[in-house]
Amino acid sequence: MRVKHKPWAKEKLQNYPEICISDPAQHKGNWQKLFGNDHPIHIEIGSGKGRFVSGMAEVHPEINYIGIEVVESVLISALDKVLEKDLSNVRLLSVDGALLEDYFAPEEVARIYLNFSDPWPKKRHTKRRLTNPKFLDIYQNILAKTGEIHFKTDNRGLFEYSLQAFSAYGLLLTYVSLDLHNSDFEGNIQTEYEEKFSQKGFPIYRLEAQFDREQQKL
Amino acid sequence: MRVKHKPWAKEKLQNYPEICISDPAQHKGNWQKLFGNDHPIHIEIGSGKGRFVSGMAEVHPEINYIGIEVVESVLISALDKVLEKDLSNVRLLSVDGALLEDYFAPEEVARIYLNFSDPWPKKRHTKRRLTNPKFLDIYQNILAKTGEIHFKTDNRGLFEYSLQAFSAYGLLLTYVSLDLHNSDFEGNIQTEYEEKFSQKGFPIYRLEAQFDREQQKL
Repeated sequence: MRVKHKPWAKEKLQNYPEICISDPAQHKGNWQKLFGNDHPIHIEIGSGKGRFVSGMAEVHPEINYIGIEVVESVLISALDKVLEKDLSNVRLLSVDGALLEDYFAPEEVARIYLNFSDPWPKKRHTKRRLTNPKFLDIYQNILAKTGEIHFKTDNRGLFEYSLQAFSAYGLLLTYVSLDLHNSDFEGNIQTEYEEKFSQKGFPIYRLEAQFDREQQKL
Repeated sequence: MRVKHKPWAKEKLQNYPEICISDPAQHKGNWQKLFGNDHPIHIEIGSGKGRFVSGMAEVHPEINYIGIEVVESVLISALDKVLEKDLSNVRLLSVDGALLEDYFAPEEVARIYLNFSDPWPKKRHTKRRLTNPKFLDIYQNILAKTGEIHFKTDNRGLFEYSLQAFSAYGLLLTYVSLDLHNSDFEGNIQTEYEEKFSQKGFPIYRLEAQFDREQQKL
């Protein structure tokens, strides 16, 4: 996504400190306390303009959502949606996905969403892909034993890579769709990008995976 | 595939006993001896009209191919191709894939090809799918330790199911393409069905998998 620089973004985020958490490391291990309940924590890495995380939060008040987006001038659109929908179960963080272990304690997260992550198609950028083993190490550390990764993308190369990377890591695939919008999957919340892309007739790929092979669903 | 009954099929197959092996159980553990060399054995389960197995055999004289097709009136088309191309590295069997262990000794097979297998889309027919765990048990028994399964299909549901079934079984995915004909995979030999189907613009899915997770390629 090309991003317009918005110098006032940081200030706007700072005006809503109860939603945009400026010192997430301080809440490591205590996110439920911040939400004021014992609901599961679901995080989205790369929330963009926040349509997914705000849409999910609206439908699932029983879940605490944390949207993570490093680009502040994009995160303000997510903030707008949270304010507009008056959602109490969303927090937003402007931090780097590679540092998640600084912000979440082991097993603190019940689910990680990766939606339309940057495909980094060049081979020399493989390590930047959010489904590469380095990131899987991080996810495994912060996810609960029964935790799940839910991943969707329109990018064929990234999905092919991810299926192999997950397999090599020993993750268990519990759901795979190679054409989400023509599947019987219910409750899909589209991202901004997803809607635009799928209107062109290309398929959306989606998978669910878990580290714990004991808890098999299939 | 709808099959025209050809009462003379059995007789024609019997006329070429050096290619169409009528008593495959007798050669269990001794297939290389039958081929008269020590080349690896690659089998295709569901060879249909034999374009794939004969095409591969032509390009790879260093491999011994065995095409397996239960329907005799289809297998004669494969026989015709083997005769026409004058191939010495192909044998054809008209047997049931569920009985492979009767015909191949443990670790006798280096590679199994599954091409456009019947998708058996109904849930109650799951066990008939050639990628279900019951068949994976059989494949594991006859495959060499470094053996591989190469699977391609146009059927999205079957490919989605297979990715999950392989993952649940603990197989390692070493190759995945979600659009084979628009990938950089080289040396693809199209089946009759594949050519017809892909001309309609639908993607062909392909994967390679192995039981032995030590021999990782990725």
